[in-house]
Amino acid sequence: MQLFLTLDAGGTSTRAVVHDATGTCLGYAVGSGGNPTASGVAPVAATMRSTTEQALQRAGAQPAQVCHALAAMAGSTVRLAGVDAGLRDLGVPVPLHLGSDLEAMFFSGTAALDGAALVSGTGAAAIVVAGGVTTGRSDGRGWLLGDVGSGYWIARRVVRAATADLDHRGPRTALTDALLSAAGVTGDRTSDKDALLDQLVSLLYAIPSPGIARFAPLAFDLADTDLIAGDIVEAAAEGLADTVLALGCADASSPLIVGGSVLYHQSGLRSTVTELLRDSDWTGPVHAVSDGTAGAICMNLRRAGVAVDVPTHARIIASLQQVRTNA
Amino acid sequence: MQLFLTLDAGGTSTRAVVHDATGTCLGYAVGSGGNPTASGVAPVAATMRSTTEQALQRAGAQPAQVCHALAAMAGSTVRLAGVDAGLRDLGVPVPLHLGSDLEAMFFSGTAALDGAALVSGTGAAAIVVAGGVTTGRSDGRGWLLGDVGSGYWIARRVVRAATADLDHRGPRTALTDALLSAAGVTGDRTSDKDALLDQLVSLLYAIPSPGIARFAPLAFDLADTDLIAGDIVEAAAEGLADTVLALGCADASSPLIVGGSVLYHQSGLRSTVTELLRDSDWTGPVHAVSDGTAGAICMNLRRAGVAVDVPTHARIIASLQQVRTNA
Repeated sequence: MQLFLTLDAGGTSTRAVVHDATGTCLGYAVGSGGNPTASGVAPVAATMRSTTEQALQRAGAQPAQVCHALAAMAGSTVRLAGVDAGLRDLGVPVPLHLGSDLEAMFFSGTAALDGAALVSGTGAAAIVVAGGVTTGRSDGRGWLLGDVGSGYWIARRVVRAATADLDHRGPRTALTDALLSAAGVTGDRTSDKDALLDQLVSLLYAIPSPGIARFAPLAFDLADTDLIAGDIVEAAAEGLADTVLALGCADASSPLIVGGSVLYHQSGLRSTVTELLRDSDWTGPVHAVSDGTAGAICMNLRRAGVAVDVPTHARIIASLQQVRTNA
Repeated sequence: MQLFLTLDAGGTSTRAVVHDATGTCLGYAVGSGGNPTASGVAPVAATMRSTTEQALQRAGAQPAQVCHALAAMAGSTVRLAGVDAGLRDLGVPVPLHLGSDLEAMFFSGTAALDGAALVSGTGAAAIVVAGGVTTGRSDGRGWLLGDVGSGYWIARRVVRAATADLDHRGPRTALTDALLSAAGVTGDRTSDKDALLDQLVSLLYAIPSPGIARFAPLAFDLADTDLIAGDIVEAAAEGLADTVLALGCADASSPLIVGGSVLYHQSGLRSTVTELLRDSDWTGPVHAVSDGTAGAICMNLRRAGVAVDVPTHARIIASLQQVRTNA
């Protein structure tokens, strides 16, 4: 039996699956993620290696049995080399192939080879897929230059709105107390705003750049009751819809797969993005996926010449669900 | 004759002045600035020491003759300690006192002890001064949380507008070609936007966080001919006016001193901020200063018990102008 090793590396977790050529999952493991840009290649390579080891163990398989290995991850072949070396060291006899994390997200949601994917996690980006390959991309330019509607983008607006409120430069918002509480800042905002702001400044500047994304959920929690929070979520939805529309898809009736921690967990945002796309004549089905693992399995299989049709795709999803439940 | 040593440390340059108790400047030197937050205490201390040495030489004076020393700088007493040690090592027999850089900016513009100062350079902040001391501040919360209308704030909008334009997510703007040219990115935007964006991403993320402020002038260059650039400058002016109004000055007829590289060099921005303040019933005179050096001299003199009245203030300005011309 030909064994496949599929890795899916996201910003917050890394997933390893050992499966066969029919898409039946035999072993599964999850490791700490770690943004490779922030943490460097070595920790990501170490996590990839340890999750691979665990997934193989759970499948009752040896590294030497792996015939096809693929990792879906953001980034370059330089990063891949470090991960590849770790797997070789473990005894995996075949080279690790790199797959796009955005394509993996797309193929998680559909067996089709044409359509688009929109991801909003810490960052945000969209791709258009034609004939099974990425033919265009939009945004994904990082926290400084783009990532409109991402967790970082939303959180930045949250922390700035709270700062402006405390500083009497901006309108009152419930985000302020929510942020002070989430950041662990204590004190009386009426007696000494500067002492409170100094605390907030110290705490938030100590977080490496995209890390403030952790405060994005505050906007969603308060979107229905606070005007400023509602505006932030509305603007995020508009930005994400624009990112999809900028792809200039020839066929707006093809599937749009949406994912990433923000779009997957915030159904309100997902609905608003969908409505905005409908208003712009995007007629295709919109489907949410939790991650790119199933899609990465499809990519690994297709690379080995296995056809992934609708029943195979469904079997992969079901089988993955089962090993996840057991893991 | 009692000699005074006054230092004024800004983000881009450090100034040292040796003067007497009448405010007559005897020696002047300028050194490289360096943001102490970015470069650390040691380089700032080294610059302070070398500019002090030069200013003393030009005044034909010895370090041992210094009776009163004051440095106006952003930041803490921790930073001051490093600078102080360097001056002691040089032979300056008196301790270095710390003055607020924002107060120095205020006192550069007026002999009055009441009023407000607004600074927009790489960052942006405002203070209200009453009886010669700061009694309130607004913004100055840094690039992530505040600094509305600062060089960084403007530049961030410039680079994001250009990125969105290139990515077809945002409107066309002349800022795009201006930025590509300023950043040294070459290529054809019609044939391969992603290759061009990848270059821009690599170049701009390599600049430490507030450093992109260098691109702020692009917005001012194009404000009259490009809608997006005009909107950025207009929003900066509104933000800066709000920062002043948030001070909640009891007396809006007191002087407002404006400074910092952005507000000093961009007279259009200065006029718009002034108009917005006039619309909000701020009636006091608005006066621009290039830096806080004259004000730091005033602070040093006052600390030593010298009264700085209007004629003394005028003499300091004139004398400083003279040593600067000769330097």
